[in-house]
Amino acid sequence: MTSVEILAMVADPVEDGPVAQAATTVGRVVERLGLAVRQRRYVGLDEATAERALREAIDGGALVAVLGDEEGALLARRALARILGVRLVLSDRVLDAVAQGYARQDRAMPRRAEALALIPSGATVLAGGGAEPGLLVEAAGARVALLPPGDAAGLVVAHFPQLVSQAMEPVVVTRTLRIVGLDAAETAARLAAALGQEEGGHGQVVDDGDEVRVRLRVTGPTVLGADQAFRALEPTLRGAFGLAWYAEEDEHLEAVVGRLLRAHGLTIALAESCTGGLVGHRLTEVPGSSAYVERGFVVYSNAAKETLLGVPAQILARHGAVSAECAEAMAHGARTRAGTDLGLSVTGIAGPDGGTPTKPVGTVFIGLAGAAGVRVERHRFDRDRAGNKAWSATRALDLVRRHCLGAE
Amino acid sequence: MTSVEILAMVADPVEDGPVAQAATTVGRVVERLGLAVRQRRYVGLDEATAERALREAIDGGALVAVLGDEEGALLARRALARILGVRLVLSDRVLDAVAQGYARQDRAMPRRAEALALIPSGATVLAGGGAEPGLLVEAAGARVALLPPGDAAGLVVAHFPQLVSQAMEPVVVTRTLRIVGLDAAETAARLAAALGQEEGGHGQVVDDGDEVRVRLRVTGPTVLGADQAFRALEPTLRGAFGLAWYAEEDEHLEAVVGRLLRAHGLTIALAESCTGGLVGHRLTEVPGSSAYVERGFVVYSNAAKETLLGVPAQILARHGAVSAECAEAMAHGARTRAGTDLGLSVTGIAGPDGGTPTKPVGTVFIGLAGAAGVRVERHRFDRDRAGNKAWSATRALDLVRRHCLGAE
Repeated sequence: MTSVEILAMVADPVEDGPVAQAATTVGRVVERLGLAVRQRRYVGLDEATAERALREAIDGGALVAVLGDEEGALLARRALARILGVRLVLSDRVLDAVAQGYARQDRAMPRRAEALALIPSGATVLAGGGAEPGLLVEAAGARVALLPPGDAAGLVVAHFPQLVSQAMEPVVVTRTLRIVGLDAAETAARLAAALGQEEGGHGQVVDDGDEVRVRLRVTGPTVLGADQAFRALEPTLRGAFGLAWYAEEDEHLEAVVGRLLRAHGLTIALAESCTGGLVGHRLTEVPGSSAYVERGFVVYSNAAKETLLGVPAQILARHGAVSAECAEAMAHGARTRAGTDLGLSVTGIAGPDGGTPTKPVGTVFIGLAGAAGVRVERHRFDRDRAGNKAWSATRALDLVRRHCLGAE
Repeated sequence: MTSVEILAMVADPVEDGPVAQAATTVGRVVERLGLAVRQRRYVGLDEATAERALREAIDGGALVAVLGDEEGALLARRALARILGVRLVLSDRVLDAVAQGYARQDRAMPRRAEALALIPSGATVLAGGGAEPGLLVEAAGARVALLPPGDAAGLVVAHFPQLVSQAMEPVVVTRTLRIVGLDAAETAARLAAALGQEEGGHGQVVDDGDEVRVRLRVTGPTVLGADQAFRALEPTLRGAFGLAWYAEEDEHLEAVVGRLLRAHGLTIALAESCTGGLVGHRLTEVPGSSAYVERGFVVYSNAAKETLLGVPAQILARHGAVSAECAEAMAHGARTRAGTDLGLSVTGIAGPDGGTPTKPVGTVFIGLAGAAGVRVERHRFDRDRAGNKAWSATRALDLVRRHCLGAE
């Protein structure tokens, strides 16, 4: 398997700014292409360090992807020219490509863009869809690609497969399964059981707090072959995770829920206490969500729960705002007052204060009212305030998803 | 200035999991201690790559901080032992420290923890507050600290200053100013003007989308001295940024707003359209926010705006839901219906659809109702849906902050 090393030359190697994020994106794309990322490094803008880092990556014999902020990109070109023992030359072709790229986007070409046309003598220009092209040089058996952060992923997709196609080695494609409702340990156990112990190393479980991702490495003779191998694994994985496997790659739970609500022609109203608006925020991150999100009530006070949702005062007095009874009344109230098909409620103790022996911090009730009545779940989360809120919102969204799938 | 390189040995160098995040945190702490981070790198778990990366960092002559997940930590120990030409030995002292650490936290010691007691012969044990101690070895003039991810920041604070104290070089401390309401270009221009052109390189502006951070590098003979130098700069910086400079380091806008609302004894109700609950979510991320957040209305539909907030139908018909008139009525309605001191409204077009020639995507109205009446601001943001929502929420929170400061 061909390996890739990623270098980002940035003013502050500790800052996860746009260039650092572009480096991570490049890594993800590289993994999907069936190449392995061996290192991802952030290198500060001092000349000696930059040159040393580049030299080390080249000595590693890998395909090296280099990104940089404005100063970093120039630093990388200078360092690369020194390593190769060549000069930086003004490339009319790159200057034209940059100028055309800006023109295509109806943007004025900034003066600094002219410096991008200074390239190590002998470099190949990698054309892409963006304003700035990439550059490719061969150095001591390694290949170095200088990528503009704004178009790095596109250039990787367009050019990296050819760069390694001669190798004829098997490729390893990384696929991501998104799991909700199972914790990392349970997910790992099911994965190991499904793939067989000897193959357990092919999947890695990432704990995101409120959900879990399975990063599955699938081997095949080509990218297409690895894809087919993944498809062949699907029934086994579905058997292992069932409905907990809700999406793949970068699709989020709120998008899945939105698609299901739309498909079933259902509208929804929200009644949020401890999540404070997070469920509404997440649902409305999806374009077109106004088709199914009718309204939301953020009922932080007991008065708001009574006035806006008609939660009976005696429920609040007898059972408290954090109770199955209150969650049920909230969901019912949201549905009837908004006149929607569904009413979703969340009430709990996010912490750090407010816990009691019978209802410790992290106790959360989630209710979903539909035509057939109200279903209430009790959860106990064990994170900090933000973590408990996030997990509550995720499980609330998942309750809607399972309802739509007829699986509650 | 002494330089630090950070290495994280992780199963997937592209994944920003807990160990990767711990590496970033270590970097931030290091910068606050007045040391420079030269490289931060994520290294995959193959033996050759791990050893090469460690060797390169040692050859760089820096102070090297190494973190790893379970497998990564063992890999790092083995690689280090090979580089030093020593054996891994079982340290009773480390085994005791680990066992005591777990006992102190009332946790059972997992079996894998025993492997942590295998240390390169001659390593110094760095004691910290957590269960697992760190290790320090000297190699070819460099120093390598192996840090457990769960306690890495604490060990850095406790031990790194001594490791470099002999140097007697000036320290450079990085301070972060948080800016809201000015864009990155304007912030950079004011920073350059304030610090003088020749000192412009000392500050770096990071664009977070809805706000901006200034990362200021301040030099002094010691950390305390650099701190004093920063204090001396404060009036100049305050003059440059005024009220747009709202906090330092990791304090968030919602925490500042919460503190101000509490200090003034004010309660607030929210009326959110395009932000969908994000303002409520952010305000309720702050512990104790139930003292001032009374309720929120997520009024996605026109019917909800009318019913819940009393927005007159003729405003919706004549001016539309995205209008100054509607924002005013929403803020007023939220305040009076909730009986709070303040009512905050947001209505706009987050996109990607819904824009018109006079109200393009990104047009947002923010209203704040108080005892003296309603103030409405019109904004035009130019990001994607998520970016426009985030920016709207930030400017809405900032309107509350400025109101509390008597500066609106």
